[in-house]
Amino acid sequence: MGLGRFQYSTHVGFAARYSGRVRSFITFLMTAGALAAGPNVVPQPAKFEARSGSLTIAAGFRIVAEGPCAAAMGRTWRDSLRRLSRITGIPDAPAASGPALTVNCQLASAVPVKLGEDEAYSLEIDTRGARLTAARSAGLLRGVETFLQLVTVTPGGFAAPACLITDAPRFPWRGLMLDVARHFMPVETVKHTLDGMAAVKLNVLHWHLSDDQGFRVESKSFPLLHRVGLEGEFYTQDQVREVIAYAGARGIRVVPEFDVPGHATAWLVHYPALGTVPGTYQVERGHGIFDPVMDPSKESTYQFLDRFFGEMARLFPDPYLHIGRMRTTGGSGRRRDDPGLHEGAGIAGQHGAARVLQQATGGDCEEARQGDDGWDGSGIRMCREALIQSWRGPKELAAAARAGYPVILSTGFYLDLMQSVAQHYEPDPLGGEAAALPAEAKARVLGGEACMWTEFVTPENLDNRLWPRLAAVAERLWSPAEVRDVEALYGRLEALTLQMEMQGFRPRSGTELMLRRMAGTKEVGPLVTLAGAVEPVKEYTRGILSHHEVTLPLNRLIDAVPPESVVAREFGKDVRAALGGDEAARRRVRVMLVAWRDNDARVRPMLEGSGILAELVPLSDALATVARAGLEAMDNRAAAGGAAG
Amino acid sequence: MGLGRFQYSTHVGFAARYSGRVRSFITFLMTAGALAAGPNVVPQPAKFEARSGSLTIAAGFRIVAEGPCAAAMGRTWRDSLRRLSRITGIPDAPAASGPALTVNCQLASAVPVKLGEDEAYSLEIDTRGARLTAARSAGLLRGVETFLQLVTVTPGGFAAPACLITDAPRFPWRGLMLDVARHFMPVETVKHTLDGMAAVKLNVLHWHLSDDQGFRVESKSFPLLHRVGLEGEFYTQDQVREVIAYAGARGIRVVPEFDVPGHATAWLVHYPALGTVPGTYQVERGHGIFDPVMDPSKESTYQFLDRFFGEMARLFPDPYLHIGRMRTTGGSGRRRDDPGLHEGAGIAGQHGAARVLQQATGGDCEEARQGDDGWDGSGIRMCREALIQSWRGPKELAAAARAGYPVILSTGFYLDLMQSVAQHYEPDPLGGEAAALPAEAKARVLGGEACMWTEFVTPENLDNRLWPRLAAVAERLWSPAEVRDVEALYGRLEALTLQMEMQGFRPRSGTELMLRRMAGTKEVGPLVTLAGAVEPVKEYTRGILSHHEVTLPLNRLIDAVPPESVVAREFGKDVRAALGGDEAARRRVRVMLVAWRDNDARVRPMLEGSGILAELVPLSDALATVARAGLEAMDNRAAAGGAAG
Repeated sequence: MGLGRFQYSTHVGFAARYSGRVRSFITFLMTAGALAAGPNVVPQPAKFEARSGSLTIAAGFRIVAEGPCAAAMGRTWRDSLRRLSRITGIPDAPAASGPALTVNCQLASAVPVKLGEDEAYSLEIDTRGARLTAARSAGLLRGVETFLQLVTVTPGGFAAPACLITDAPRFPWRGLMLDVARHFMPVETVKHTLDGMAAVKLNVLHWHLSDDQGFRVESKSFPLLHRVGLEGEFYTQDQVREVIAYAGARGIRVVPEFDVPGHATAWLVHYPALGTVPGTYQVERGHGIFDPVMDPSKESTYQFLDRFFGEMARLFPDPYLHIGRMRTTGGSGRRRDDPGLHEGAGIAGQHGAARVLQQATGGDCEEARQGDDGWDGSGIRMCREALIQSWRGPKELAAAARAGYPVILSTGFYLDLMQSVAQHYEPDPLGGEAAALPAEAKARVLGGEACMWTEFVTPENLDNRLWPRLAAVAERLWSPAEVRDVEALYGRLEALTLQMEMQGFRPRSGTELMLRRMAGTKEVGPLVTLAGAVEPVKEYTRGILSHHEVTLPLNRLIDAVPPESVVAREFGKDVRAALGGDEAARRRVRVMLVAWRDNDARVRPMLEGSGILAELVPLSDALATVARAGLEAMDNRAAAGGAAG
Repeated sequence: MGLGRFQYSTHVGFAARYSGRVRSFITFLMTAGALAAGPNVVPQPAKFEARSGSLTIAAGFRIVAEGPCAAAMGRTWRDSLRRLSRITGIPDAPAASGPALTVNCQLASAVPVKLGEDEAYSLEIDTRGARLTAARSAGLLRGVETFLQLVTVTPGGFAAPACLITDAPRFPWRGLMLDVARHFMPVETVKHTLDGMAAVKLNVLHWHLSDDQGFRVESKSFPLLHRVGLEGEFYTQDQVREVIAYAGARGIRVVPEFDVPGHATAWLVHYPALGTVPGTYQVERGHGIFDPVMDPSKESTYQFLDRFFGEMARLFPDPYLHIGRMRTTGGSGRRRDDPGLHEGAGIAGQHGAARVLQQATGGDCEEARQGDDGWDGSGIRMCREALIQSWRGPKELAAAARAGYPVILSTGFYLDLMQSVAQHYEPDPLGGEAAALPAEAKARVLGGEACMWTEFVTPENLDNRLWPRLAAVAERLWSPAEVRDVEALYGRLEALTLQMEMQGFRPRSGTELMLRRMAGTKEVGPLVTLAGAVEPVKEYTRGILSHHEVTLPLNRLIDAVPPESVVAREFGKDVRAALGGDEAARRRVRVMLVAWRDNDARVRPMLEGSGILAELVPLSDALATVARAGLEAMDNRAAAGGAAG
């Protein structure tokens, strides 16, 4: 049954893992069950002590705020009760007395929250009530999310298990980079995503606001900038403030990103004098890495940027401001190894950009230095205050930390690469080369950021692209390093996904809806069977090689199916169990193969009736062929007397 | 197999129609196929001419507004393109040239629209483009909905069929009464419902803003009024204006309702002097018909109401204002037949209330008259301007029209009674006694209103309670009287429901989500099987007899399942076909019965694992018993050589 990896021009491939080949999962399976079962919460808390009984959530359940710090968070508690009501279906109508979650903190955190703020909390639940305590209000924000996730349906109705949780994050910087340049995400979508981030205790929205394909924030200094972008959409400064306030109320910082000098086409459309080459520029409609680049040799470039970044520094209160990856094709007419155009790490600067960094970090950059610090061997001159977002790997991260820079990890956390929960759960900011750093350098490793580039992501499928995989990254960044049981995580993610659906997220139901749209009918059983067997192609296969434009309709199977197939994962487990002699698993494998074999005839009329689905005929045929081969192999094995035929 | 009707303490019963008894459906089935197939649109247009080919909807599709009237509706067209994008998944990025829907009107309609406004339009679609033309902008609003509904997935991708449609409504008053007193509906929910109303060409939102259980609009004259209501929620006057503007942009009038003198508990909580009985009043937490009533014998009552209605008449621009049904238990200490307390039709008045009507209608009420006009034999004195909303039946409606009053029909359109599409589709404002009215009286029959009382409806299940049944009422009120093919309607409603789901409505997916919540898992197959076999109890069984309070959690099976079961309807058709000798139908009946029989064992662990589902154990057992009996009957019949055993 070794079937390898299928890929089609439709850009949907069978995931390799249900080929029957046992691969990297083995390592995780070996750890399963080794740790004591934690609570049904993502991310796992630092300490958990189960107690007997549970707290029933019934009509009238309340949140009682004790003391001025907690009382000042009235909107948070009203919102929490509303969410509890969506989780349970019990009306949001707190009684004057009776069971409650009592919340108490010593001191209000700054809003927006500061990097390194104390987010610790303790949560004690018994059969009569629950008590959430924190030194700072940021801790209460984290703790109430734990409480909400603990509420599940039980034989006694909705309830939270009695327990004592003492929790604090492992890393202070736990972010999501959201690209709104390739596809614009409306304010409501951004807020909704902030709700989800808060649910898994992320605390930085890294907002990628400019790129070759669009410039998404209003500038009053340069009012033509935000006229650029395919949908013609951008955030007004009032909307930016609204998002910052919304994030702030959830303990989330907002770090804006404006890319210089590369990824800069959008700046140049109306301000071509910034560019290295005279002439006119068009906003980019394709995906990839493009030539247009700002000219770092002109003083006027810095004057422009000083004014622009000055305006943005007033708009965005966070001390950090991201200036891009600087990755370029080299710039027309300029050498690729020009120090001003280096393909480097997340945040970097040189002569003029240092001024930008000054504004962004508030530092005077007296400690700026030139290239001999070994972290990248690049000759880039940077301020010591600059924080490096590492996307090139643990080696670069370790070098930067050793050279004295604060660093965060993004390698392995690129959710747009369509990798599995297990793959995104594996990387550790302090893993690989960083594990060997001296303690002083380790302390500079502040956390990490998941990245969601949106070449093929719209507001419609964003939930299915982010969730539940983002929660796996969130757990890696919050929970103790030894929390690594990926099988247990998969189980907890199922529960989290269900609870998120109840609160209006559509990681699963969005897929179902898109399948119905493709088929033009509600009855899409055979299409669901086909969809369940495939995953989108991985890594950059679709993005870089296909030269799609941003106007490509993202309404096909590849856009609808989740990055990781639950069916395929279960099937892979069954195959491994069957090979190990598990008879029940063997029967399930056979049932699945028969279903796949017979599905082709059932789904065919649906595929032929829809111009969106017609391209899937070869895929369905291939699935049937694979299934027939699998059944034949099982028959042969059974005939030969094999244990797991 | 004659199983009758099952009802359980869980308030979910098997629908009678899949007992195997062939009942009222026969009459509809006989008409099926008698009419030429209309387009896939609800409501059906007045005239439709199919042509060959279709218009492909691809990236870049545009709406071109010709002339100042259509050009002034830019927001409408942007919104239409956004909705088209949700229907197709194709980006909302109109090109500079290429296929378009061209829109053109002669004259802008008033905003808000006036009763009787010309809503006619014509829509011509060919393979190169589409052209929508109307005398007034209101007609364009109706026509663009027709266009959007025509877009479906085809073998050639998304497309609209080439055709010529000439359309206009049969009745000018096509409304939905939405009760926001029993359960508050947030502004977003109201707007969302207005979107749905516009999609099926309804043009009146009758907003039931006060009742015994709550007072939901801000009054500046009497600022304690809106402090009443279980959730403590009300609309600010700014929000009311926002809703009116939102409705206005969709060609929908907003008619507010404030009930006097009955259903008046909420007024009396803070203004007890209005009541017939001195003392204190509490907002009503139960459902039913209650004693508290305003005292019509005190001049101060009229002074209060004059001031209140004066304020509301300034807030709500529509000339109509609904003052309630006046249905009371008689008022403590007053006789039921007191003319001031009569249980009458929708809008009525007597001595003092006539002043209210004066304000509401702008009439001077010189033609007020006393009770001898025969329409209700009640002795109620009313202005000629008063419009009667008839909920007591066609006889009352005909009498009122004959007596000179404008009338609308609501009998048969009470969606909270959980009746079927077929039942709500049947009543006709000009049916029954009205069919025999002289032409002059017939002209006073202005249309009808669906009613959605919300004792057991929350924002969560509102979509499943309204849709698709509201569309059946909308078709009755818009389409020609001879459009009556209910089987064809069921098919078109499936398509409409799917398209509405794509636009964010959740009539179906909301049910699925609630089932998952009850079970605490995504895998709810056996629960779906059980849920598919049942419908909520009908009429007032749950509401009046059970004495539930408004705080009752509406998170159970009865709250989740649609009022009408698609599975049950299909099964009923199969049973009838099987009895008629259809062998394929007989096989489907057997498969269904086997599935129901075997489902009990499969669903039992799920029911026992959830406190919300535990009450369904007897229901599941009963379904299995019924299925076994059905299978036995089939076996006996087969053994006896019957054709449809």
